[in-house]
Amino acid sequence: MLEGIRDTGSIAAAGRRMGMSYKRAWYLIDTLNGYFREPLVSAVKGGPRGGGAQLTQTGQEVLDRYRRMETAARAVVTADLEHLTKMAKPTQA
Amino acid sequence: MLEGIRDTGSIAAAGRRMGMSYKRAWYLIDTLNGYFREPLVSAVKGGPRGGGAQLTQTGQEVLDRYRRMETAARAVVTADLEHLTKMAKPTQA
Repeated sequence: MLEGIRDTGSIAAAGRRMGMSYKRAWYLIDTLNGYFREPLVSAVKGGPRGGGAQLTQTGQEVLDRYRRMETAARAVVTADLEHLTKMAKPTQA
Repeated sequence: MLEGIRDTGSIAAAGRRMGMSYKRAWYLIDTLNGYFREPLVSAVKGGPRGGGAQLTQTGQEVLDRYRRMETAARAVVTADLEHLTKMAKPTQA
């Protein structure tokens, strides 16, 4: 969602990319903003396209750390996960 | 659950440690066994205490790999997670 806002500059568009209604997307951002001391997303008012949304510096940092954690965690479990997958029954096609 | 069986030698006792009914514990083990080519838990028949259960070699290996993945993943995300926690609002006591 944060990546979507960074890429599209719009909460609605970011939500659509994830198959979310506008209302649900706003609610998610509201909830995320509420978890942190500083907001992650700021609404941009006005402008030729009627405003939009962008990540704050905090939002960018949260996104970066999240992605880094994801990548690092995946890297350290890959070998074991592959081994476990080989121990598992093949899934039905 | 696998640790509980390893420690107690009993599916029922392992389930109790996790607040599960006997039926639910058996169902979980049955499901786990079904995921893998080899069973993770084998029932031990008879004996003075009326049987029990123990981990197979496969079960021990799955448990070891799982715990290792957990430990490794936690280790690599700790610094970022602490940072994110500091960025989060304090939770109400």
